[in-house]
Amino acid sequence: MDVVIVNGLDDVVAVQSEISLVDGERGQLIYRGMRAEDVASQHTFEEAAYLIWHGRLPSSREQAKLRAALTEQRDLPPHVQTIIAALPEETGIMDTLRTAVSALGTGMTFPAAMNDVVSVTAKIPTVIAHWLTRKRGIAPTPAPSGIGHVEYFLYTLHGALPSQAHTDALSAYWILSMEHGMNVSTFAARVTSSTQTDLASALCAAIGAMKGPLHGGAPAEVFAMLDDIEDADKAESWLRDKLERKERLMGFGHRIYRTYDPRAAALRAVVRKYAAKDPWFSLAEQVEATALALLQEYKPQRPLYTNIEYYAAAVMRALQIPKELYTATFAASRIVGWCAHILEQEAHNRLIRPQSTYDGPLPKPLSQSQPAVGDA
Amino acid sequence: MDVVIVNGLDDVVAVQSEISLVDGERGQLIYRGMRAEDVASQHTFEEAAYLIWHGRLPSSREQAKLRAALTEQRDLPPHVQTIIAALPEETGIMDTLRTAVSALGTGMTFPAAMNDVVSVTAKIPTVIAHWLTRKRGIAPTPAPSGIGHVEYFLYTLHGALPSQAHTDALSAYWILSMEHGMNVSTFAARVTSSTQTDLASALCAAIGAMKGPLHGGAPAEVFAMLDDIEDADKAESWLRDKLERKERLMGFGHRIYRTYDPRAAALRAVVRKYAAKDPWFSLAEQVEATALALLQEYKPQRPLYTNIEYYAAAVMRALQIPKELYTATFAASRIVGWCAHILEQEAHNRLIRPQSTYDGPLPKPLSQSQPAVGDA
Repeated sequence: MDVVIVNGLDDVVAVQSEISLVDGERGQLIYRGMRAEDVASQHTFEEAAYLIWHGRLPSSREQAKLRAALTEQRDLPPHVQTIIAALPEETGIMDTLRTAVSALGTGMTFPAAMNDVVSVTAKIPTVIAHWLTRKRGIAPTPAPSGIGHVEYFLYTLHGALPSQAHTDALSAYWILSMEHGMNVSTFAARVTSSTQTDLASALCAAIGAMKGPLHGGAPAEVFAMLDDIEDADKAESWLRDKLERKERLMGFGHRIYRTYDPRAAALRAVVRKYAAKDPWFSLAEQVEATALALLQEYKPQRPLYTNIEYYAAAVMRALQIPKELYTATFAASRIVGWCAHILEQEAHNRLIRPQSTYDGPLPKPLSQSQPAVGDA
Repeated sequence: MDVVIVNGLDDVVAVQSEISLVDGERGQLIYRGMRAEDVASQHTFEEAAYLIWHGRLPSSREQAKLRAALTEQRDLPPHVQTIIAALPEETGIMDTLRTAVSALGTGMTFPAAMNDVVSVTAKIPTVIAHWLTRKRGIAPTPAPSGIGHVEYFLYTLHGALPSQAHTDALSAYWILSMEHGMNVSTFAARVTSSTQTDLASALCAAIGAMKGPLHGGAPAEVFAMLDDIEDADKAESWLRDKLERKERLMGFGHRIYRTYDPRAAALRAVVRKYAAKDPWFSLAEQVEATALALLQEYKPQRPLYTNIEYYAAAVMRALQIPKELYTATFAASRIVGWCAHILEQEAHNRLIRPQSTYDGPLPKPLSQSQPAVGDA
């Protein structure tokens, strides 16, 4: 049997998808034929989710219908509220999210129903709100009707309607982080889904994978940097000190993008637009300018550009999203991409099952190591 | 960039493992250097689990310690009992198992603690017992102390100690189904684990994948066949009728094994030994002999041998394990392999992330489809 050994599966194409193109050389992120930055600057969260799920933008009627469905399905069924309340107090938000989504799985079958996709997406901010209010020891404030998904999330966090600047910033962040090709959480969702299991099972795999620090986690470190710098006047000495000690600046450089991360550029545009209205936006912009100048001075050979984590952290800091919610806030948008990939996997299903080699000992008279092919 | 497009990852080796070798050509299944059938015929569930986890058989002292740990950790913490009771009544066992394991994840960090591996393994039969007793509307009977993991599972199902024949049969089935290379649930666990997430997250991915009918599910169909035949005298006419109608006989033939499935052979030996003591064992053996003779008559060109699902179903039927628990009973043993793979993935970690191609539309002036590389 001809086998190709590729640890980690780098450079192996396991999936053919029509959802997104991540073009690192040209700094392009394409969602269903549209530039992600155009979607973020010209469309709502609801329109973007519709685009990712259905392959085209919704009509105004379709958008209104999705917005209404997300609103109607926000509330958690009583059993899920009981389950969240039953978890040990120290349970982290990602563990809570995984358990809540698992508990929502009752009755879900293959293939996934669009109604379940909308329902689970609608409930992620509510699960986060339940976790947060429990931690704070207060009851969740019921949100007013008629607000969109982005305002709803910010309302649940702060118990007040957000400013336009904050709504626009989170909307841009969420749209720009909704989908990004074959990342690990999306791949985990597709592998799990390939046995024709249900939506909740595939989403639990994705949430569990995203919890791992090798998946996300960088925005929390950028947060610490901005929090520490605090004042734009202190930025140069803080950053210079870091570079003199040969430490890495978080939020700069990217494994894939060889140019400016298109998502960072789009998010920066929003931050810049509202810089006068929020001191954190202003600080983020000034720190970035100083950092890029210093990186040019210290590492002229290496093209280090700002990545999305930098502006994601700046936005979440400005929106007073608690640091321990950064990964869950990311999950609240990436669930859109996960669901699209699960639907695509189901529609063109093929079991995703590679091989492994066996490098352990052998009993006599077996004598040669050879590829091992697994099965149920 | 050189890419290899392999839908479904057939023939791609993604993992190098020291846990098991599945050699379909020679009909061999090797666990850590030992033939699986030798492990099943000569060792206990506890010894086999120790072998799969640690790479060698335990000393008698180590075995006693593991047996004691499994016993001590059987009970579910109160919050998990509350959570199982809170799930909607119609929740299936696999959904219950996924939610319960997720709820056990609080406090689990990377890398997985051996204590957590033992703890979750110990609790799977208890979760099944809670599900079953709730369905039956009775409280679980506390199990006597001093019994092993296999007897414990059968005790929780029936509220009485099993016969030696039944204990030996389930022990053999569990040991023979503990581990089988890079199957989908194991791969889902390793992909999820590769972000350095916790044990519960990786196990939830595996449970969710196993729930899908493309992963397991065959034993339930064999059950239906044996149940329908009911009497060995009716076997020939029943099976001949099926073959005349060109229908497939469940429990025969295997994607990988080109010879008799070594697991089926080992399980048959146990069934044969106790055939006089259980009419279902006796029926299974007689139906198999008739089926193999008829397959030879109807399909002489195709080498169709008995697979493990056939004897798994026969054993579970004889042990009066309800049909809706077949997949969960399989999960109760395969969790041993999942945990071993998670520990191995953690020890030699590399993010498992393949690529996808983008086959969707492009905005102008982008014009060529090209591989998309994903990232968080």
